[in-house]
Amino acid sequence: MAEKAYADQPTSDIEPLNPPHRLLMAPGPTNVDPRVLTAMSKPTVGQFDPYMFKAMGEVQKMLRTIFKTGNERTMVVDGTSRSAIEAAFVSVIAPGEPVLVCCAGRFGMLLKEIAERCDADVHVIERPWGEVFPIEQIEQAIVEVKPKLVATVQGDTSTTMCQPLEGLGDICHKHGALLYTDATASMVGNDLRVDEWGIDIATTGLQKCFGGPSGMAPITVSDRAAAVMEERKSIEAGVADSAQEIAVKRIRSNYFDLPQVFDYWGPRHLNHHTEATHMLYAAHEAARIIVSEGIDNVIERHRINGAAMSAAIEGMGLKLYGNQSHRMNDVIGVVIPEGVDDAAVRAQLLNDFSVEIASSFGPLKGTIWRIGVMGCNARKDAVLTCAAALGNVLERNGVAVDTGRGIDAALAIYESAERKDNQEN
Amino acid sequence: MAEKAYADQPTSDIEPLNPPHRLLMAPGPTNVDPRVLTAMSKPTVGQFDPYMFKAMGEVQKMLRTIFKTGNERTMVVDGTSRSAIEAAFVSVIAPGEPVLVCCAGRFGMLLKEIAERCDADVHVIERPWGEVFPIEQIEQAIVEVKPKLVATVQGDTSTTMCQPLEGLGDICHKHGALLYTDATASMVGNDLRVDEWGIDIATTGLQKCFGGPSGMAPITVSDRAAAVMEERKSIEAGVADSAQEIAVKRIRSNYFDLPQVFDYWGPRHLNHHTEATHMLYAAHEAARIIVSEGIDNVIERHRINGAAMSAAIEGMGLKLYGNQSHRMNDVIGVVIPEGVDDAAVRAQLLNDFSVEIASSFGPLKGTIWRIGVMGCNARKDAVLTCAAALGNVLERNGVAVDTGRGIDAALAIYESAERKDNQEN
Repeated sequence: MAEKAYADQPTSDIEPLNPPHRLLMAPGPTNVDPRVLTAMSKPTVGQFDPYMFKAMGEVQKMLRTIFKTGNERTMVVDGTSRSAIEAAFVSVIAPGEPVLVCCAGRFGMLLKEIAERCDADVHVIERPWGEVFPIEQIEQAIVEVKPKLVATVQGDTSTTMCQPLEGLGDICHKHGALLYTDATASMVGNDLRVDEWGIDIATTGLQKCFGGPSGMAPITVSDRAAAVMEERKSIEAGVADSAQEIAVKRIRSNYFDLPQVFDYWGPRHLNHHTEATHMLYAAHEAARIIVSEGIDNVIERHRINGAAMSAAIEGMGLKLYGNQSHRMNDVIGVVIPEGVDDAAVRAQLLNDFSVEIASSFGPLKGTIWRIGVMGCNARKDAVLTCAAALGNVLERNGVAVDTGRGIDAALAIYESAERKDNQEN
Repeated sequence: MAEKAYADQPTSDIEPLNPPHRLLMAPGPTNVDPRVLTAMSKPTVGQFDPYMFKAMGEVQKMLRTIFKTGNERTMVVDGTSRSAIEAAFVSVIAPGEPVLVCCAGRFGMLLKEIAERCDADVHVIERPWGEVFPIEQIEQAIVEVKPKLVATVQGDTSTTMCQPLEGLGDICHKHGALLYTDATASMVGNDLRVDEWGIDIATTGLQKCFGGPSGMAPITVSDRAAAVMEERKSIEAGVADSAQEIAVKRIRSNYFDLPQVFDYWGPRHLNHHTEATHMLYAAHEAARIIVSEGIDNVIERHRINGAAMSAAIEGMGLKLYGNQSHRMNDVIGVVIPEGVDDAAVRAQLLNDFSVEIASSFGPLKGTIWRIGVMGCNARKDAVLTCAAALGNVLERNGVAVDTGRGIDAALAIYESAERKDNQEN
């Protein structure tokens, strides 16, 4: 019997939501594009409605363009970004199989942790936070470990760095490994060429450069990776060779069993879960906005706005974090000036200007701020507003910054991009 | 290198979504309440925004009222309904541990399958589809199996039946077992008393009687069940007694590691995943609508509309499926008249009237239709429209039904409910 009475909790006074107007300049979630918000409020259709299948098919088509892949198995996982990472890992890796994780930040650590939960034989190579791996270091580890899966993070938001991946797929395949990359924070803001770079599985989320809401995770899977997963497809107990074979090989998750999810997204539309209709609408509109603008144009827009944000930071006299030649276009690290109270500055930014930026994790906690220019926030007024607000708050905290010079430097980037654009057209 | 060129797939001609106007009378997903759709389009806030924590806290409070529980650990899992089932199972069950599954329909089979994926020692008791378990049969199996977890489905949509659960919690606890129930299709439409009935874990989804979108799964966990999960909380490799201990005991999923999710929803708000903000808005508004109307009033509304739908079916001369004293309030089974083409009738209903009803699965596929009266579709005009449309389509398919008499019978139910309501007030 219950000891606590649920009726004691008053709920009738709870009012409808009325969220504050934030400018979200942390590295995600970012403000959802208003067109995506509108799409989410469209009427519901059933999970087997012909219109639902049309919408799913269109999402797949558009995601292929954005992932730069011909992979048939390109779709979404119904969960936040890490749900797709786990779906990829649990569908590929059987217990005891060797996995090589490249770890140079918090999200490399997450890949390690997820691989461990799969009871993989996990091997980790590390770089200090803020660095990227030379491809040769990864290759050497592949030769030593002979992994089934090589797991990388393209853009580790914790460090703002973007791991070069070109050529890595061929190396993995030469040594019989599959290549996975977590492109949650990087994709759409930075170039990602799934087929050209030989990436077997890439996953992402909607809440960063897609400009959509958190809660749905695009994924693409090569035929090569799918073949590995299909081998592990559930076998009925009656036809399996032995109980042990089922235990070791069967995919350990129903929700994340990608071969079953493929059947749902494939031409037969075999029921698995009930697709998250309104999140699918969000994915559809977010993808449609990107393909309408052109994926390479969207990446370039993120590059220009990231450059403007960096210029503003340096222009006002702050220091950028890390090797800028490896920085993600869409995430800028700012060294927190000595003596400044990180939490107080961010609270003032939020309370006075309604602007959100982030700190970082682990060894970088309290050391750098991270500013995101993602999705529809990769635009001039968002960058200038964020810079002006940060400059003002720092001034009020006694830091000698020249906010005006920062804004000028950002504007110079935009002017130069416009001149270049005009010359080309 | 890629063999297929992504550029070959034209995507620029894809138009914004414009879904058809459906009346969704299958047993979920149902039409999302327009107030919930509006809530989903509200501005985005960051995952650590004080407003986000306020919204999360309010969702928890309201879900406690709806689950009729004082459980602190009441929140949502970011995925469709089955994601919460898997989160519950994988967080409780270590490999080899005994689980008793009560199976009398498709969703009992799903519980069995998910328990198997956890490598549990799975014991199943069965009833023919369309029946419910006498509590004594479950108790006898508990005595024999001595399970760690007893898994039940409250409302198995595949059969329309509602499993009585009163008293089962005490029996489970007497024998050292935890009680889980899948209330996806039943909750809010039928009484569910988590604390009073001693249910340790109950899970559901938004897309049925909550009147929200698919993609988020409310869950409540008792202190007793949480203690079992917390024992399995990740231990750092350096402090564990042996490697074996980690492998056997550690929760096998990161995404579904409920102790970590508790930390995220708890007062410390330790970051796990990035909460699905706009789905949370949907959960908030769906729950708010329910607590404003009053959970018991909402259940009664489902009962009346389910009774009206049944009366319409019988009134027009069709046969109801199954023992009506165990039928879920919100799902009505209709025996498909002999010689009628199931798929053709449902296609005509959809194409001519834009009304969706469902068939069933397994032994009931092609044998019964299932009509849902769920969420905001548990209302008079939806029931009458569905009945009138079904009657008309059947007439056009040569079935001798008296649609008018069906509508009259439904109206009589509403009139009697109104009279009763007036007498009480």
